[in-house]
Amino acid sequence: MNSSGMLPSWNEGAVKTAIVEFVEQTVSSEVPIEDRIATFDADGTLWCEQPMPVEADFMLRRLAEMAGADPKLRDRQPWKAAYEHDNAWLGKVITEHYAGDDTGAKALLGGVSAAFAGISVEDFEAESDAFLRSAQHPTLGRGYLEVAYAPMLELLGYLEANGFSNHMVSGSGGDFMRPISREVFGIPLERVIGSSTVLEYASDHTGGTLTRKAQLGFLDDGPQKPMQIWTHIGRRPLLAGGNSNGDLPMLEFAQHDDKPSLRLLVLHDDAEREFAYTSGAEKALAEAKARGWTVVSMKGDFATVFKAAHPEDATRPGRALKVMSSRP
Amino acid sequence: MNSSGMLPSWNEGAVKTAIVEFVEQTVSSEVPIEDRIATFDADGTLWCEQPMPVEADFMLRRLAEMAGADPKLRDRQPWKAAYEHDNAWLGKVITEHYAGDDTGAKALLGGVSAAFAGISVEDFEAESDAFLRSAQHPTLGRGYLEVAYAPMLELLGYLEANGFSNHMVSGSGGDFMRPISREVFGIPLERVIGSSTVLEYASDHTGGTLTRKAQLGFLDDGPQKPMQIWTHIGRRPLLAGGNSNGDLPMLEFAQHDDKPSLRLLVLHDDAEREFAYTSGAEKALAEAKARGWTVVSMKGDFATVFKAAHPEDATRPGRALKVMSSRP
Repeated sequence: MNSSGMLPSWNEGAVKTAIVEFVEQTVSSEVPIEDRIATFDADGTLWCEQPMPVEADFMLRRLAEMAGADPKLRDRQPWKAAYEHDNAWLGKVITEHYAGDDTGAKALLGGVSAAFAGISVEDFEAESDAFLRSAQHPTLGRGYLEVAYAPMLELLGYLEANGFSNHMVSGSGGDFMRPISREVFGIPLERVIGSSTVLEYASDHTGGTLTRKAQLGFLDDGPQKPMQIWTHIGRRPLLAGGNSNGDLPMLEFAQHDDKPSLRLLVLHDDAEREFAYTSGAEKALAEAKARGWTVVSMKGDFATVFKAAHPEDATRPGRALKVMSSRP
Repeated sequence: MNSSGMLPSWNEGAVKTAIVEFVEQTVSSEVPIEDRIATFDADGTLWCEQPMPVEADFMLRRLAEMAGADPKLRDRQPWKAAYEHDNAWLGKVITEHYAGDDTGAKALLGGVSAAFAGISVEDFEAESDAFLRSAQHPTLGRGYLEVAYAPMLELLGYLEANGFSNHMVSGSGGDFMRPISREVFGIPLERVIGSSTVLEYASDHTGGTLTRKAQLGFLDDGPQKPMQIWTHIGRRPLLAGGNSNGDLPMLEFAQHDDKPSLRLLVLHDDAEREFAYTSGAEKALAEAKARGWTVVSMKGDFATVFKAAHPEDATRPGRALKVMSSRP
């Protein structure tokens, strides 16, 4: 496997060396294919999460729409913030979440669950799909399908070429991410683990209908990540990648007595090409330092942050992808 | 694909024809590989569930062991039944479960959760693994690894050879089935969906520890099956196979407007080679008849029920499988 050929968007240095050595050691020590499991957080690890996670934008637009149609909602959070474009409220929720207080996050996710309550899983999939393929990132001048980090996409490909199965383990909803997980990240639907909404099944003569209820199943963050990994995969990952305190348990969980392992923590230190922030990652960064995990500096280790937007990406067969005209 | 070559344990007839036609139609109409999803119940569909499901035997032995060590438990269900080998109590629980009353089943599963509460997921895996590889079926004269139905194993292989991904969707615990799912059924760990136990995560310097709590997460049966299928796979199956009322929603869910689909319902009508019973399957059989689903008669459609037990199976590399001496 010619690794440097597969990782052109990574600068040479200690991080790239650690990745290549880990993969080569996995292969040379003949770790069985079924144990070559990699798990990645999505928001802030595989793609951009600033100024807000992609799903939050999706949900806020929907909440604003609801408040537009129903004035009674305009006094209640999270509809109020969505309707008034009050990003400060959302910012506070996220800050509190990272500090370990999920009261606001649960209110937000509760509103979000309510926002799509009563629609079928197929209709929700169609709504997510349409949003992800048409909405633009608020500041980067590119569509959401193009805010994935080029070096991380190469890493996913490099791992897969070496027998790994890549899984997404995201705080965002699994049903939100699935419509584009394969196309953007090469991750098949069954390897997407995300936050869940409680579903309801009704028997009928059209194959039964699964409907979303106004109730969060679980928030796939923090200790829930190793729990969900075990429940879905039944194995500890060999490699785990994250960027925030909520990824700490998953990174810790990637440990084996008898096999190589690698923990990657993405550090957002590139205000010029992406964003610079450590809010919500302080504990993770401290632990990474204390335990010798691999910290990926976007500024230092990423030769390129985003893929150039190619117009032909917009015309893949069978896809209704809107043309994204912007180039970085 | 030479289908008859891959399905030697199936008798020629309407059922085999329906299977082959469904697969050939899927291939010739170029259904995308990622949509070729098959979901199978385990107990009574892929392997024997009489006189009790395999996991129930595992759990009862453990409960009896606990009651042996602690006399106070001998007056409480399910320990009492386990200690006294009171199969009538268990039979009643199962009958009530099939009739739609899960009170007893939840008591049993509660006891079962308690039976393994406080042990790590890895230790539980080792216990399940050791049991499955050593315990004998009570009446068939063969080990539990050899009570899988040969025609169903061939069907799994035939589907896989035609681009399908096979998933197990079982009322038994996912963590119980995983140690042998790949070896016995060719189903990788991440495609095993089963009932869940609530887990607890504790951070430590040995990679964190996941412990089983004395609490059932969900019972993967009835309407829970399509819910779990959607949460794990994000797709409706093209083919669903089951044998009881608890599989009805999953079978119903295998419907597509624009793709072929197949529902298989295994009918236990072979007292000589396996068991004959319709208890708990009455509604499923009535629906199958009303909707034109495919009923698989074990007596009529299975040329062979179980694979011959080969001594060399017992000495697979790296496996501590006890030699199973019996041949049918």
